Amino acid sequence: MSNSVLGNIRVVLSHTSHPGNIGAAARAMKTMGLSNLFLVNPKLFPDAMADAMAAGADDLLANAIVCNSLEQALQGAVLVVGLTARQRGLSHTMLNLREAAPQILARAGDAPVAVLFGTEMSGLSNAELEKCQLLITIPVNPEFSSLNLAAAVQVVAYELRVLAIAAGPVSKDIPLASFEDVERFYEHLERTLIEINFLDPLHPKRLMTRFRRLYARAQLEQEEVNILRGFLKWSGRGRIPKDNS
Amino acid sequence: MSNSVLGNIRVVLSHTSHPGNIGAAARAMKTMGLSNLFLVNPKLFPDAMADAMAAGADDLLANAIVCNSLEQALQGAVLVVGLTARQRGLSHTMLNLREAAPQILARAGDAPVAVLFGTEMSGLSNAELEKCQLLITIPVNPEFSSLNLAAAVQVVAYELRVLAIAAGPVSKDIPLASFEDVERFYEHLERTLIEINFLDPLHPKRLMTRFRRLYARAQLEQEEVNILRGFLKWSGRGRIPKDNS
Repeated sequence: MSNSVLGNIRVVLSHTSHPGNIGAAARAMKTMGLSNLFLVNPKLFPDAMADAMAAGADDLLANAIVCNSLEQALQGAVLVVGLTARQRGLSHTMLNLREAAPQILARAGDAPVAVLFGTEMSGLSNAELEKCQLLITIPVNPEFSSLNLAAAVQVVAYELRVLAIAAGPVSKDIPLASFEDVERFYEHLERTLIEINFLDPLHPKRLMTRFRRLYARAQLEQEEVNILRGFLKWSGRGRIPKDNS
Repeated sequence: MSNSVLGNIRVVLSHTSHPGNIGAAARAMKTMGLSNLFLVNPKLFPDAMADAMAAGADDLLANAIVCNSLEQALQGAVLVVGLTARQRGLSHTMLNLREAAPQILARAGDAPVAVLFGTEMSGLSNAELEKCQLLITIPVNPEFSSLNLAAAVQVVAYELRVLAIAAGPVSKDIPLASFEDVERFYEHLERTLIEINFLDPLHPKRLMTRFRRLYARAQLEQEEVNILRGFLKWSGRGRIPKDNS
């Protein structure tokens, strides 16, 4: 799944009161690679506060489509998803954002999907909820559910992005030590521990097992094995007293 | 997994410039059920702007622990996780937030875990990165990665909450070493390396950094620190010949 899927996601902000929130939402979208912003009857837009809060996502504001009806903002959308804080009426399926994300992205594969956010004060109106095919919720702390508009956009956009890029591990090009190098290190370690009388070969207990577990977890790199063996070499030859050699 | 796991998550904000960001971060935390806020040398705190931006998360600000060193904020933490925007030099294992979340929560099952956020302008310093055992990144849009501090806290807190309320704890009954125990081990290691002339204090190169990386990846257990320090003690005192003690 590529970023073109994210290009089919439309963020629709309905009747937003504070232009600063529009700017902050644009910024949140852009950090996650979303770009299509639709504004239904914003109270103030364009506005200097929106620009200030966009902090570099000005292009999203410049390209935002201002609509005077929700219908206009939803034109062409194959799925309309509404974000809501709680179960509303009986009408819709309500899913957690995480559960809903695969569905949203699947639909966005080849056609626009709209994610609809209501006003700061009261969320989506009943008329707006009726236009939605799917309601999603962010599982906030029930004792403090005041997620602001931009924060909600941020979380939704994050969830969609993570899935869209099907994030693999950040690659790490550092060469790891081979099995045999690590085994040679363990032999060297054991020899040293015996030499310095830290390990009694007649009563080894589980000391080497403990060391093996520790270093196995670390997944040693080649160079680290060299450093550790260098240390053992110096350690095993005994300290050369500094003052009275 | 219950919310008590979230109660073991500590958000540490280092050298935050703008008090408004501290307030917004507190709000973001509280929406996701996090409550432990630690501030390392904030530029301005307490501050009216922090209160205003907290928007009801005043209790988190009131209970925030202001520290004058990072060490103080990390006391007792069994895992220190740093948020960073990019792979940093020789640095640690870096995981996407989503990959790292299970690990973070598993460790938070019975002891504090610290998630560390750097300054608004430059993120974590190299010295701060060195204290981390795990680096995480939020997979932002590479062309617009300007996630603000509160937005980053929001996303991290969301990710941890979703997992915390969904999954059962991955219990690990082996007690992990605390931050300060691990730091004492590093001091002991460095002292020993100098004593045995393996480390030249005038030309330390990056030897201690290499060791820190290695052991950070392993996430040392309490008993392992004891074993390693026991080894250092014997190693440092020089080899006692076996026959003629």
